[in-house]
Formats: sequence, structure tokens, C-alpha cells
Amino acid sequence: MYIIGERINGTFSNVNEAIKKKDKSFIQKLAVSQIQKGADSLDISLGPEFKNSTDAMKWLINSVEEAVNTTLCIDSPKFEIIEFALKAAKSPKIINSSTCHDEKLDKYIKLAKEYNSSLIVLTMDETGLPKDLEGRLALAVKAVQCIQDNDFSIDKIYLDPLVMPVNIAQDQAKTVINTIREFQIITSPPVKTIAGLSNISQNTKNRSLINRTFLALLMEAGLNSAILDPMDSDLMDTVKATQILLNKTIYCDSFLKLR
Amino acid sequence: MYIIGERINGTFSNVNEAIKKKDKSFIQKLAVSQIQKGADSLDISLGPEFKNSTDAMKWLINSVEEAVNTTLCIDSPKFEIIEFALKAAKSPKIINSSTCHDEKLDKYIKLAKEYNSSLIVLTMDETGLPKDLEGRLALAVKAVQCIQDNDFSIDKIYLDPLVMPVNIAQDQAKTVINTIREFQIITSPPVKTIAGLSNISQNTKNRSLINRTFLALLMEAGLNSAILDPMDSDLMDTVKATQILLNKTIYCDSFLKLR
Repeated sequence: MYIIGERINGTFSNVNEAIKKKDKSFIQKLAVSQIQKGADSLDISLGPEFKNSTDAMKWLINSVEEAVNTTLCIDSPKFEIIEFALKAAKSPKIINSSTCHDEKLDKYIKLAKEYNSSLIVLTMDETGLPKDLEGRLALAVKAVQCIQDNDFSIDKIYLDPLVMPVNIAQDQAKTVINTIREFQIITSPPVKTIAGLSNISQNTKNRSLINRTFLALLMEAGLNSAILDPMDSDLMDTVKATQILLNKTIYCDSFLKLR
Repeated sequence: MYIIGERINGTFSNVNEAIKKKDKSFIQKLAVSQIQKGADSLDISLGPEFKNSTDAMKWLINSVEEAVNTTLCIDSPKFEIIEFALKAAKSPKIINSSTCHDEKLDKYIKLAKEYNSSLIVLTMDETGLPKDLEGRLALAVKAVQCIQDNDFSIDKIYLDPLVMPVNIAQDQAKTVINTIREFQIITSPPVKTIAGLSNISQNTKNRSLINRTFLALLMEAGLNSAILDPMDSDLMDTVKATQILLNKTIYCDSFLKLR
């Protein structure tokens, strides 16, 4: 299970504040803590206030790279900001993300290929997010085709079925679980899958409970990777327990202490 | 999800002590608490010291029936003790359990039919527990055949794949999940399934974590019922969250407060 820490995101007011004040120590502590808690990679997102700022992106990347040696998951809705970040970062990179719009997907795959970056592909397109498994699967097949047409490596791709909040689209949770299961039969070996976990519990109470329960179900369906909060120790304990129950890591009494 | 409370079991030293001292109040509190915490039924087991005592069984049933009005899950390895309990109890009953030994299964089905009781069938036989899904499935098919031969109602049956401790048979956890999924395609409508949950964490540390994580995975696979500890509030919260995520109960902010 590949864990991408979600915390360095300007959507959080304390991170936005740190970007504004150029509080390097705050960002670096957040980077180090997430890695210590089990993150394999760190999401880097500017948030709404600084979304167009290459200065802020450069500062954020430099701050993180000074503190930790890890893969950066460059998270922006803007192609130009992502392209800038790919140039600025020395670390291995994941692009977060492209959708399956024809031209957009092609452009992002070429960008990922140019910078030897991995790429998260959301199975939605210009008409929006398909509500059913079949619609997402059709877009996934299209994405795989586009990757092959570009002679890009399938193992650099993470398919993301897009997790919806359970309190407003309750039937989508089960659809996402089934979609993760089906994504894996498109290619051999199976294409990797990812989920932005915290979306499931947006605006609910009991967020940690909903997040960790959903993650266990996604992992059983074969999920390879998730963007989540590694500082949530109940969540990380669930990751470890699920790995044991799915026979992915060997049981020992101290399994919670291991990374 | 049908919850059978596991706590009235002489294997627990305090329950054994209560049986010995005829401490009715202790047993009755345990019965009431489990129902309050969400149990739909109560397991009644004498434990090793009193396993052959019809007196102890009668006292236990009477004590529980005085305190609560619920289905009793009569749990004994002895046919004669189960038969005695079925006569003694006024409540609806579940027999826990038969295996798939030819003559034994036939005898238990006839007993269940006579007392209009439900019956838990473990998919193991005289040669032991099959280690794989296919072996358990073959026994499940045999059990369904035997139920039909006896003109007994399939909806009175719970198939139990037998949960093994994860620390000594780690690969079995995933096999049990897959077996629960496959059991449901034997009959239409699907035969009900059950698991003795706490077995998964026998002699491990972090029992509650392992129990609740495994239960979520089993529920996603379609499990209908479990014998478990309803006093474990983290476990019961996981049941409720999983029901929400699988779209079995409607989300509301107070979902944890609902039974």
C-alpha cells in the first residue's frame, strides 16, 4: 500500500497561513511528521489563494525537499503550475491529476513522459463523472489506450475512480469499491489504482471512522495507493491490520509498530 | 446485519464463576447490556466446566429469559445439551452448531425442524476443515442438498466458513472473505452466512482493531450475521459505518446513535 500524505495543502487554513508567511519550519515539520507516520510520498497543493503562484509552488517544493527525501505528488488543477513544479522539483514526481478529456489526457501523458513522472488519471471527462461502474470503466479503457498510443509505461499510471462524499452520494461508495476491483482486469499486470480517501467523509461527523472503514474495503478490493492523512493513527493502524488480514505483510505481535 | 452477542459463555472466567455461584444478576446484566449495545440475539454457552450440565443450561436460559426477550443462540458441542436447551427455552432459537458430517448434519437438521429453530452449519466434516475455498464450497453444497432432502427451509440456515486465528493461519482470513462471497451464489435467494468473529484475533494483541477491520471486510463480501462482542463500541461503530458505506442504511449525522 502506497501512502501519499495529504496534509501539505493550502486548502487547510494553517498551511495557507504558512505559505503566506513563508513559515518554512511549519511546512518542514508537516513533511517530516507525515513521513515518520508512514507516508511514502507527499501531496503538494497550493490551495485556492495561491493556486496561480509559481513563487509559492517553488517555495513549497524547496522547503519540503530541504527537509525530506521523498516522492512529491504535484497537485494542481492548472497545467502550467504542474509543468512549473515538475521543472522545479528534484525529487521523483507524481502528477495529480489529469481527467480523461481527449486532448487534456494526451497533453498530460506527454508531460509525464517528458519528466519521467507518474500520473494520476481521474475517470471523468468533459461530460462529468460517470455515476456507474461501466462509465468509469469505459474511460479507464480509453485512458489505457491513450497511454499505449503515447508509448508511455502503464506502471506509471494510477487510475482514480473519484471518491464522492457518502453523505451526498451514498450509493457511490459501493460503486467505487466495485470500480477499483474492475480496473484491475483491464490490463495484465493490473494497472495501479488510487483514491483520494478523505472525500468520502467530507462534511460528515465521525470522519476518521468513515475514512478508515472505507479504506479497509477499498484495500480488500485491491486498491494500491491512497491520498490520506497519515497523522490519523487509527487510520494508519487500519492500513496495517488490513495488510495483515489480506496476507500482504506477515503477522507479528508488534505489527502496529512496523512501517 | 444480524448481531449475536458472544458474552454469555462459560469460557470467560467471570461467566463461569457466575454459573457456579448462580449469580443471576450478573448474567442478566450481561444479557441486557448486550441487547442495549445492539445485539439481536444472545449466544448461550456453558463453557468447559459445566458443558454436560443440563441444570446449568436450564438456569442460564431461565435467567436470560427473565431479563430479555430475544432469540437465543444455543451453543454446545453436545447434541443432548442442545436438545435439552431447545425444550427448556421459550424464546426463538438458533442451534450453534452442526458440522457437515453426513449423519450428524441430518440429525441436527431434523432437530432444528422439530423445534422450528435456525441452524448454524460449519463447513467442515470428519476429515477436518478444508483449507481452501473450493473444499468449503463443496461442503456448503452438500449441506444445502441435505436441507432440501429434509424439506427444511433454507432461510433457517447460516453457513459458517470457520474463522481461523490470523496469527497461526494468516492466509485463511482472505480465504474466509472469498468463501463468504461464494456461499451466496449456491442458492437463490442467497443462503445466509455467519462468522464467529473473535476467532480471527485469538492470542493476538490489538484484538479489537483486528476484529473490527476483519468484520468490515466480511460485510463487504456479503456477511449477514456475526457472533461478536457488542460491548466493543469501536466494533459496533464499524458495523454502523460499514452499513452506511455499503448503502444498507441511510446516512444521517447521528448514524452512530442509531440501532
